[in-house]
Amino acid sequence: MSAVRRLLLIENHLSSKFPNTPQEKGLENFRKLETKVNHNILAKHYFDYFYEAILYTRKIFDESPLFNHEESLGSSIEDYRGKIVEQLKCIYSKFHMSYEKDLANPLYKCSPIYAMTEYDQSLSTRMLVHIILYTDTIQNLGTEKHRELIDRAYALKDYGSFGMTELGHGSDVGRLETTAIYNPKTGGFTLNSPTATSAKWWIGAIANTANMSIIFARLIIDNVDKGIQAFAVPIRNYETHDTLSGVVLGDCGKKISHDGIDNGFILFKNYEIKYDCLLDKLSQIKNGKFKSSIKNKEKRLGIMMGSLIRGRFCVVSGSEINTRSCLTIAIRYGALRKQFGNPNEESILSYQTHNCRLVTGLAKTVAMRCASKVIGDMYKAVKPISDVNPECDELNEFHSVLSSLKCVCSWYGIAISQECREACGGHGVSKYSSLGRHRGYVDVHATWEGDNTVLAQQTSKYILKILQKSFKGQKFIAPTLNFLNIDFQEVKTFKSLFTSRKEFENEKCIISLFEHRVNFLTHTSVMKLQESSMKYSDMTTAWNNSQIFYIQDLSKSFAELIMAREFIKLSDNIYKDCKETGIIIKKLFYLYSADRILDSISLYLESAFTHVQEKIIKETFIKTAAELTPASLHIVDALSASDKILGSVIGSSDGQAYTRMIDAVESELKCYYKPKWLHLIKDIRGS
Amino acid sequence: MSAVRRLLLIENHLSSKFPNTPQEKGLENFRKLETKVNHNILAKHYFDYFYEAILYTRKIFDESPLFNHEESLGSSIEDYRGKIVEQLKCIYSKFHMSYEKDLANPLYKCSPIYAMTEYDQSLSTRMLVHIILYTDTIQNLGTEKHRELIDRAYALKDYGSFGMTELGHGSDVGRLETTAIYNPKTGGFTLNSPTATSAKWWIGAIANTANMSIIFARLIIDNVDKGIQAFAVPIRNYETHDTLSGVVLGDCGKKISHDGIDNGFILFKNYEIKYDCLLDKLSQIKNGKFKSSIKNKEKRLGIMMGSLIRGRFCVVSGSEINTRSCLTIAIRYGALRKQFGNPNEESILSYQTHNCRLVTGLAKTVAMRCASKVIGDMYKAVKPISDVNPECDELNEFHSVLSSLKCVCSWYGIAISQECREACGGHGVSKYSSLGRHRGYVDVHATWEGDNTVLAQQTSKYILKILQKSFKGQKFIAPTLNFLNIDFQEVKTFKSLFTSRKEFENEKCIISLFEHRVNFLTHTSVMKLQESSMKYSDMTTAWNNSQIFYIQDLSKSFAELIMAREFIKLSDNIYKDCKETGIIIKKLFYLYSADRILDSISLYLESAFTHVQEKIIKETFIKTAAELTPASLHIVDALSASDKILGSVIGSSDGQAYTRMIDAVESELKCYYKPKWLHLIKDIRGS
Repeated sequence: MSAVRRLLLIENHLSSKFPNTPQEKGLENFRKLETKVNHNILAKHYFDYFYEAILYTRKIFDESPLFNHEESLGSSIEDYRGKIVEQLKCIYSKFHMSYEKDLANPLYKCSPIYAMTEYDQSLSTRMLVHIILYTDTIQNLGTEKHRELIDRAYALKDYGSFGMTELGHGSDVGRLETTAIYNPKTGGFTLNSPTATSAKWWIGAIANTANMSIIFARLIIDNVDKGIQAFAVPIRNYETHDTLSGVVLGDCGKKISHDGIDNGFILFKNYEIKYDCLLDKLSQIKNGKFKSSIKNKEKRLGIMMGSLIRGRFCVVSGSEINTRSCLTIAIRYGALRKQFGNPNEESILSYQTHNCRLVTGLAKTVAMRCASKVIGDMYKAVKPISDVNPECDELNEFHSVLSSLKCVCSWYGIAISQECREACGGHGVSKYSSLGRHRGYVDVHATWEGDNTVLAQQTSKYILKILQKSFKGQKFIAPTLNFLNIDFQEVKTFKSLFTSRKEFENEKCIISLFEHRVNFLTHTSVMKLQESSMKYSDMTTAWNNSQIFYIQDLSKSFAELIMAREFIKLSDNIYKDCKETGIIIKKLFYLYSADRILDSISLYLESAFTHVQEKIIKETFIKTAAELTPASLHIVDALSASDKILGSVIGSSDGQAYTRMIDAVESELKCYYKPKWLHLIKDIRGS
Repeated sequence: MSAVRRLLLIENHLSSKFPNTPQEKGLENFRKLETKVNHNILAKHYFDYFYEAILYTRKIFDESPLFNHEESLGSSIEDYRGKIVEQLKCIYSKFHMSYEKDLANPLYKCSPIYAMTEYDQSLSTRMLVHIILYTDTIQNLGTEKHRELIDRAYALKDYGSFGMTELGHGSDVGRLETTAIYNPKTGGFTLNSPTATSAKWWIGAIANTANMSIIFARLIIDNVDKGIQAFAVPIRNYETHDTLSGVVLGDCGKKISHDGIDNGFILFKNYEIKYDCLLDKLSQIKNGKFKSSIKNKEKRLGIMMGSLIRGRFCVVSGSEINTRSCLTIAIRYGALRKQFGNPNEESILSYQTHNCRLVTGLAKTVAMRCASKVIGDMYKAVKPISDVNPECDELNEFHSVLSSLKCVCSWYGIAISQECREACGGHGVSKYSSLGRHRGYVDVHATWEGDNTVLAQQTSKYILKILQKSFKGQKFIAPTLNFLNIDFQEVKTFKSLFTSRKEFENEKCIISLFEHRVNFLTHTSVMKLQESSMKYSDMTTAWNNSQIFYIQDLSKSFAELIMAREFIKLSDNIYKDCKETGIIIKKLFYLYSADRILDSISLYLESAFTHVQEKIIKETFIKTAAELTPASLHIVDALSASDKILGSVIGSSDGQAYTRMIDAVESELKCYYKPKWLHLIKDIRGS
């Protein structure tokens, strides 16, 4: 906080024009309604392998004056970005990252990013772009000679960016337009942006910060297009930070979120780079001839995009974190805010219309954290295998799990953050609530690191391939799909036999329902595809016309099954340490399941259950949301960072929403103030 | 545009660092796929009684340099607000409003607001707060002596605001804390804000502009609370614009949208006002005694909030307008943006995943316009009746229709604007797309002019009362509910008999399905209420616990029936003038209906139709969306304002999205620029 601002704040406190308010007791009283949640045990299990990093990083944020939301809110975009560079340095210096540590623990790099997202996703994304998108690409696609670049990246000697997307192409990476023409004389390449749409666009760290960038470009040898390759390219002078000759770098301008990221564009004009800029693990040029260990261009491109794996992991985590922040705010506000009721006003959170929104959102958030856990665990297992064989089954399976979870979690986040904004009414519109910031952060998750509708198709394609292989009796490694049933007759006649809430609230019963949905959609998607293939001349068109109600839903149903399984594991683990907390998390799982099953109600009504059973699930949903309402406050309390990190006046843990709102408003320089255009008012009123 | 900016733009054009791009033909080519939409006929019927005002106002926006989104985007909040005052004056001077005109045509005042929202909802809301919320309150609740205030308002001699909401109370108006203590000696009142939470909060025009405000306050006579009354109160000196002594006015600070509105707070400290400030049509004080023609406090409060009627009307319209702008942008962008396809790249709009999102959104938007039409027509009919008898049946019915439409339309808008943002991918995140602005504008609609979940209950309460009356054989006037069936057995066994898409695509068939849903939910809500009332001690608790799956859905189903009916009328009217355009709008109606019926699929599967019929509706949905895709571009073209008014680089009618994006980005002063914190980069990289 600047000295001027601090003084102003003190002055305002002393000279506030508002009547004194007694301490608000609403939140405190609501907390007393429930005491069964063991905050520590819950947090430990919830954050799991990120637990230590979270505690460590939260401490830094809490203690260092570098981190201050109020200040960021008041500063210009330029200053905000500058501050983030300082913050990055601070965090970076505490984590001592290195290639060796990364090799030893594939999640090591992700933990500061996870923890930083709690404070500000603009900040964590800046780290992610450099240490994951940029560095992972070199690690994945480079060779021994690129080792120096990797070390420089970890030492932050280079600050890297990731030049994949162009103005004209995002999802369709195969059609990028930037060219890298091989020069047989020098053995190097010439980079060019032949069209305006070929400008690399939205590239994080380009406008101001990066001196290096990965560039995905179309390799041309002897006028023959060899497909997309990745290059690690210097873009700014290491000493002066001036843009290098032949390169144009600019700022992508105003955005609706992520002001802290200096997204920019890159143009190349006959920019000469050396051969060694080519990340040549998969493909090389020898004696002027192109060679690749992966012949299939599409497959090769898929592998080349491997650096997006941890990027997508961070998207899933980021969705969970921002959504959790929104819910922390909305649930606390819902507990302290009172409206209606007779004779006493009631917390709005106690109304069915309110808790069905928010407590369900909380259940989904825990499911999102479970998604992260699955990805983390799978990644740790898959990485060593795929490092040896990038075409292994395990990686394909992992990719399909990751893609579907990325879609579902980002869409959950978008919906829940909006619910939270609405649940906080007008005060949710105030920037001091910070809901707008978090909503803006999750919003982009549907788009970056792969558009959701495109990613969903990759998962479904994988599941359908596995089914096809099963039909043919082929073996494959896909433990996540071991329940796939090739007998559609059996699937179509599946019946769930629960007859009461108690029988429904049973892990086996619920998992069988989640599995049934995947099976059902797998088979109906196949049938739909067969039907479409009769109608359209080519398989691509047939595929594109079998999306809605089928292929898109299949991917989602698979993701939710994965999350449900992990949710059970989480609740079991917590139960072992604290029975009462475990029971609450199990209830949260039932709520999640009821909500998700009702979301596909017509599918289930085809065979799996009856309208009577539907009503049991609806009752479960409503009752569980109500029963969990007091606990929901403890759950967000247990998982939330400090008020300083959360930075929301209406969501602070002390429940002093109104006083804090007044403080924030009165601290603005323009709170009590006449605008310079007063004459215009007189003018309009004289008219 | 400032001279500096203009020069910069020209300079950028000349010195652009981007390669020249040939004219993009994507949008133009897409337009050629369909030619059957008669733009003029469609626009005329669509805008209906707003048609003239729209054309008139669009011309002003197009011709006056006062209106310029690019400039607003670049200016400070203070300058933006000042510009809006100038814009207000400009529009105001063209519409020559007066009390007489308002009496002659209840929609007259709404037309400039409708038209202004197309340009900028911050602008139109500023008009709305003054000429509707402020002025209508005086018109509705004032008496002959307040006539002068009304005339001053229309002449813009006074600029008014509407002080209802407080920091601590929004929906629960009955619990507002501001007090107005009657002083028997002077015959006047003393206004006080006894607590911090009693500060009037979020009040539009308070921070800078208004000199008058309606104040809702608790009237105290002789220490007895007489309930909430409305007062018209001066808050700033008419000449100097200084805040009057005893009044505190301030700015509510930073918001996530609506920067153009100077929302503020009001505090009173022993502020003395005259008796005549009381708007005393319904309640008076005579000889120190309180009298009211409406004895029931709750009923009285309801009538006092009558000025929100036209406010809610504008919310419905505003949702439609902003959503339409989003779709104009997303559909045009979807047509010109190409990705994937073999051998030629295809417009992303031609993919099922894309057109099912956007064309359905368009169908909903037309339904939203139909909602406005219904409200407009009903209001014209109801106003003269309710002016005489504010407790008339017609007003109650109108209120129930309006409340439900406000909820549904705002929620449609929120969902569709988000779909549009996602459909435009990364470029939807750019402020130059303007999607963020529109999304921000619809977002608040769920909250202001009455929280959606609260309003929905008012509609359902009305419907259930009507059913109750029917049970008792009582007569009532509610033409919108003439289909209510008191026989639940009959409702429960209703069967729809369509066996093909063709049979489904029939207005009678569809309306019977919409009506069935209302009937079904009416009865199941009654049953749920009965069940709840056995469980809970009081009816309020029973009511609150019968919301989800019942009372909330009932209101929504009613709104969608109303919209569906009007949609048919609209398509019939267009059909009369142009058969081909009419057929397209009818198809849009089928798409809307299919989508909405699928939204309640489990209800329908209980009796109304089978899974086989469900599949027919799903096929209808997918096929209709695909068939309407080429027409969708013409529909948005026909209805959209000019590129200048729309202000979106990716949604402009010429389809030059990329060139315009580049222009916008290069026109920023900080496009090619080194930040002042360059040393921090060197610092971090040295670390």
